[in-house]
Formats: sequence, structure tokens, C-alpha cells
Amino acid sequence: MAVGPSVLPVFHQIDGVRLGIASAGIKKAGRKDVVVIECPEGATVVGVFTKNAFCAAPVQIAKQHLAQATPRYLLINTGNANAGTGKQGLVAAQQCCELLAAQMGVTAEQILPFSTGVIGEPLPVAKIEAVLSAAKQDLSEANWAVAGEGILTTDTRAKGATAAIEVNGQLVHINGIAKGSGMIKPNMATMLGFVATDAKIEHELLQQMLRTATDRSFNRITVDGDTSTNDACILIASGQSAEINQADEAAMTAFQTALDDVMRSLAHDIVKDGEGATKFVEITVSHAATQDEAIEVGFTVAHSPLVKTALFASDANWGRILAAVGRANVDALDVDKINIWLGDVQIVLNGGRNPDYTEAAGSAVMAETFIRIQIDLARGEVEDTVWTTDLSHDYVTINADYRS
Amino acid sequence: MAVGPSVLPVFHQIDGVRLGIASAGIKKAGRKDVVVIECPEGATVVGVFTKNAFCAAPVQIAKQHLAQATPRYLLINTGNANAGTGKQGLVAAQQCCELLAAQMGVTAEQILPFSTGVIGEPLPVAKIEAVLSAAKQDLSEANWAVAGEGILTTDTRAKGATAAIEVNGQLVHINGIAKGSGMIKPNMATMLGFVATDAKIEHELLQQMLRTATDRSFNRITVDGDTSTNDACILIASGQSAEINQADEAAMTAFQTALDDVMRSLAHDIVKDGEGATKFVEITVSHAATQDEAIEVGFTVAHSPLVKTALFASDANWGRILAAVGRANVDALDVDKINIWLGDVQIVLNGGRNPDYTEAAGSAVMAETFIRIQIDLARGEVEDTVWTTDLSHDYVTINADYRS
Repeated sequence: MAVGPSVLPVFHQIDGVRLGIASAGIKKAGRKDVVVIECPEGATVVGVFTKNAFCAAPVQIAKQHLAQATPRYLLINTGNANAGTGKQGLVAAQQCCELLAAQMGVTAEQILPFSTGVIGEPLPVAKIEAVLSAAKQDLSEANWAVAGEGILTTDTRAKGATAAIEVNGQLVHINGIAKGSGMIKPNMATMLGFVATDAKIEHELLQQMLRTATDRSFNRITVDGDTSTNDACILIASGQSAEINQADEAAMTAFQTALDDVMRSLAHDIVKDGEGATKFVEITVSHAATQDEAIEVGFTVAHSPLVKTALFASDANWGRILAAVGRANVDALDVDKINIWLGDVQIVLNGGRNPDYTEAAGSAVMAETFIRIQIDLARGEVEDTVWTTDLSHDYVTINADYRS
Repeated sequence: MAVGPSVLPVFHQIDGVRLGIASAGIKKAGRKDVVVIECPEGATVVGVFTKNAFCAAPVQIAKQHLAQATPRYLLINTGNANAGTGKQGLVAAQQCCELLAAQMGVTAEQILPFSTGVIGEPLPVAKIEAVLSAAKQDLSEANWAVAGEGILTTDTRAKGATAAIEVNGQLVHINGIAKGSGMIKPNMATMLGFVATDAKIEHELLQQMLRTATDRSFNRITVDGDTSTNDACILIASGQSAEINQADEAAMTAFQTALDDVMRSLAHDIVKDGEGATKFVEITVSHAATQDEAIEVGFTVAHSPLVKTALFASDANWGRILAAVGRANVDALDVDKINIWLGDVQIVLNGGRNPDYTEAAGSAVMAETFIRIQIDLARGEVEDTVWTTDLSHDYVTINADYRS
């Protein structure tokens, strides 16, 4: 089950960024399960990682390596998350880096490892080792779509986005691929995103732009509220096209907007492919006093099992939305000022049922596949948006039957 | 669906506390849906109420009246929550108090109103008015079991508990009844608890004892994480048996323990009757640095849809428990020191899979109806426990189909 049509874009090439795909049979024979992404010399590479205290071995190694050197290769495997594997897991992740480094003639610190799949099983290093030269042979700038397939686990479809902007007469491109159909699926785990541009951007600015875009995309989605042990998103700037720097604010803004668009598109694709999803839901909280409280209210509504089951049932059960807003961790919320809309239909007026509201109008909105909930707190000037999906029988089936 | 056998205790009588039940046909004809509880003159009455910012009209009125006068009657209706009803709802709740006050010859401020049921519909005051004299006629100290039935909504069974202790040669009794099969069910809403004792206890001490017992019972359970707009628990001390006061620490401790037992038993009954529940789950977090972090970790695991679906599937999916602990909001958690047990089976040793763990051993524990999860954080000396249930297909069915 997934929401809306499955469409991969026609990717641009990102000069200097090549991708190679191979089948190591880590979990299933014949499945594309190893992807290598090459960053050219002189590229800038930044990342954001899961805040789960139990972060997986590859996440720990990737963070270390990023601090030690400029990455030349990303090594991604599916079918095994190398999480909950203790010291052995760290050794295995490092081994993979050393093997690929030897293959490519770089140092192990120049490799960033990423794993996604079953938690708690030892990583089959030998299987990965066996296909590294095949992945190397396969390296090509034209491989974005195939790599988008190669990083999937329980996803029902590949997720990709692309954008191009003009910076001082030069075309700058951004490509992204991602995987994930829940904030966590701890046996076949996690959200991964790989984004690359041919722009030339120095490290600190690139890191700041990635953080900003993450806060406008991956950090605003939820399927089940469970944060993965393996989440990571990497942004590569190959530096083969125009330079973007602090001195040119127009170019910076244009690039940030394009990056936001690419990453938001990937984030939305993950929600639409959420486990058991039948609806795509946008929750906007307006007139909040702070961004924190806007997000708190948005996620409290997005995580409510009662709101999510009502969405699944296409039931305009406004009392459930109201109760979720009321239990959000917001100080001194004046409920008598709150207004709530379902699509264009106002359901709550000044904290109570809108007298003009009719069930028929609410039900018409809820019958749609794309649903917008707007909550006006009347406390300040901040607005923020989160995206989520519904809670269906299929969610329970997928997660209750997963290991059996 | 509910967990374990359905057993109401043989209630003691609480001298001075009489209960009357009537059928007003608020939602369904013939159903017992109005309960009046009489507190004798000289009784002490205290309450705890929902912290949801959208608290229902009866909750607002009950809090006001409790501050203004010593209650003589509680008036409870099911079938309509009188929540999300704005000023009209406050007027309706106050009207009910005035009508019962006139019937009983007391002031309206001596009445506490409680409502549970559909949100957002006007309270049918006339229907309630029509049966107040019947409820008055029915008042009896022997009516605890019938009153336990009379406050139910979507509950599949009545919930009651009773205890007796000896205080300085006198028998002191505690009775309690409760309703609820989720922290919230916003159309037929809420958790309500009514507890009475014949002990004589002054107001401040009684309030403190109720808060303590609530923190050891109702504030430690969750079905779906959604806090209701109507939750309330009332404790009446009729003062017809022994006095309990600060001067007699042994009696205070004995009473608090008995009160905890009664309220914990009611709280457990609510979890066991949780929507779609097939398991009763106790989560103990030990060696936490603070009580807050013990509760945070406990509830994060208890609310995880992935842990809950694994419980439903009897799947010893320890990675999901570990990931939930890791995302709990606890500063500087040292995951390498964490140990986790499923029943008596250690699944996580020092933050990783216990090498001695076998799936067979884990699955045997998960196949039980009563499941204990113990999480040792190795950070301090505090222990706390929360109780929850699983997430089943029936939960989705109940909440997706509820209004159709």
C-alpha cells in the first residue's frame, strides 16, 4: 500500500558523482543490495545522523570518518543494519571501509559506511567484499535511478527527486535518493537519504544548508513516531559547477530553496510509502508563539493513534484532533482562541465546534487521499508544518507479521 | 476483547456513602447511564482531573465547585461527554447541578458533575432531569457493583476494587469503581474513577494521598497515549470509621498502601480492558537517575507502535525495545550499560544482544498474556513501573469503525 502514483524523476547527472550497484545476496539472492557512491576530489561532503542513543555501528564510524577526512566514497548495504551488534559491529563496519579503500586506492577514513536492514545480526563482511570490484566496475554518473532501487528494503517503491537552478549563468543541479517507509522499522531498518549537487560550496555553509533543509523535510515527517538507530542523510557538493558562497545571498537563497524542495520531495515520498499508508496528511500549526510549540502540537496530532485511525476511516472525528492539541506539551494554551480547519472546512471555532460545521462537509474532506489539517493557536507569529500518514490494518499486519 | 478474567469483588459498604442508579436513555434506551453518589455531611472529598488543556465542561464546573464548597453529591452521566461544547456546555453542566441540588435540598456548589461519552454533542439536560428522583429513590450503600456498571461506556466489563485495613482496632474500608478502556476514547470518552473510604481524613492529607495513589496507578497506565478531555478521579472519606492523621504514621502508611492497591487494581483493570487488548504488559525501569527519566523511558517503550505490534504478534523483537529506549528523551544515556529482560530472559546485555539469548526463550515469554519488560539503565537508584497493552487489529477496527 502506498499513497499516490509512484514516479521517479528523470535525473540530471551530477558531474563528478558516480554510482555503482551490485548484488551481494546479503538477505535475498539476486537483490541489488550494495551501492557505492563516489565523490570527486575536492568535493565537500556533510551529513546529519540519527539522535537515537543506540546509534548503529556504521553511523558511529561514518561520524568518525567525516571528522577525520574528506570522504571519497559512500558504501551502502541493505539487508543488515549492523545495529545492536556491539564492538563486533564496529569492527565489521571498519573492515568494509578498509576493503573498499584498498579497492579504490584511498584511505579507510575516506569511506563512509551505511547499513540498513535487520537489527542484531552480524554483518556478512565477506559477502560485501565479494562484490566491491563489481560495484567499482559499475560506477557511472547515469546510475541515480538504479541506485535509488539499490538502497530499498521494505519500501514498496524507489524515491528520488531532482532540481536545477541557474547561478550566475551556470546551471547547478541537485539529485537525491532516499529509502524508508517509517521513521523506524527496526528489523529492516531506517531512513537513508543521499543528495548530491555539482555546485561548489565550502564545508560550513554546506553543513548549515543541509541542517536547514533537514529541518524542513526529514525532521518534519513521522509514520509511527519511532526514531531509527540508522537514520542518516548525506549531502555531496562535487564543486564542478558554479560556486555558492555567503557573499552571494541571492544564489544562496535559490540553492537553499532548491535543496529544500528536493529533500521535502524525498521526505514526502517516504511518508507516502509509509507502512500501511492510505492517506498523506499535512498538519500546519499557525500563529504559534515559538517553532518548538508549533512542532510539538503538529507531532502530537500526527502521533495520536486515535487521529490516525480516524484518518484511515475517513471519519471527520474533530474531537480527536481537539483532544490531541489539548494534551500537547504547551504552557498556558488558551483553548478558547483555537481554530481548526480540515481542508477548507472550519471544524473548530474559538475552541468549540464551529456552529456552521456539518458532518457532510468534514466527511468530504476526509474522503480525499491528501488531507490538510490547519491548527491556529492564536499565540504568536510562527508557523510550521509536519507530514504524516494514517494508521491502518495494514500497519498492524506489516509490523505484527514481519518476522514470522 | 479483554485480557484475563472479568471479576468484580464483593464490595464492603462504606458507611455514609450511598449510590443511586437510573436509566435516562441518553444514548441508548434502557441503559443504566446516570449514577448519583451521596457523600455524608462531614465527609472530606478530593479530586484529581485531566491536564488536557481542552478540559470538558463538567470537569471545569467540578473543579470550581470543589473549591467553593464541600460536595454532598456526585452526578455522573454516560453517553455524552459534554466536551467541546463551549459556553453552552458549561451552562448545561451547571443546570444539572442545580436540578439535583433542588432535588436533594443542598446548593448547586455541593454537586460535582461528571460526563463521559460522545464529544461535541449538546448534553440532553431534560433527559437527565427526568430521572433524578428515580436515582434519589435508588440511593443505597449496597449499590457499588451496580454503579460500577452504570458508569461504563465502550468498556467491555465493570471495574471495581475493595480493601479493608485495621486502624487502631477499627476496620477501615476502601471501595473503588472506574471506567475507561483507553486513556481517551474521545467519542465515548474517558477514564473516571470514584473511590470512597469510611475513614476520617482531613482535606489536605486526603488530597495528598489521592495524588500519591494516582501517581502509582492511573498516571502510570497507557493504552494509546491519548489523554482524555474528561479524566477525573474522586476520593471520598466519609469519616464514619477511624481517623487517620499525620500523627499516626503507621496508620497513614497502611491506608496509603491500601489506597494504592485499590487504585492500582482499577488502573490495571482499565489496561486489561484496553481497546483491542490481547496482552497486559508491565514495564519496569530500574536504576534510573530520576523518577522523570524512569517514566519517560517506560512510556516511550509503552507508546511505541512497533513494540506494541510486536507484543500483539508475540514476537520477541528486542531491537524494537532497544530502539525505543534509545529515542527516549534522556540526556547522555550510556547505552553500553543498559540491560533488558523479557520476563526472566535477559535479551540485552551491556547495550547489545545478550550472547546467551535464544529466540526460543524470548518467544516463550512473549506467548504469555501477562508480559514483564525490565529495563536497567545503570544510572542511579530510582525505579518506576508503567502498564500498557498491545496494538492489535481490533484497536484499529474499534477506532476506525467507531462512528460509522
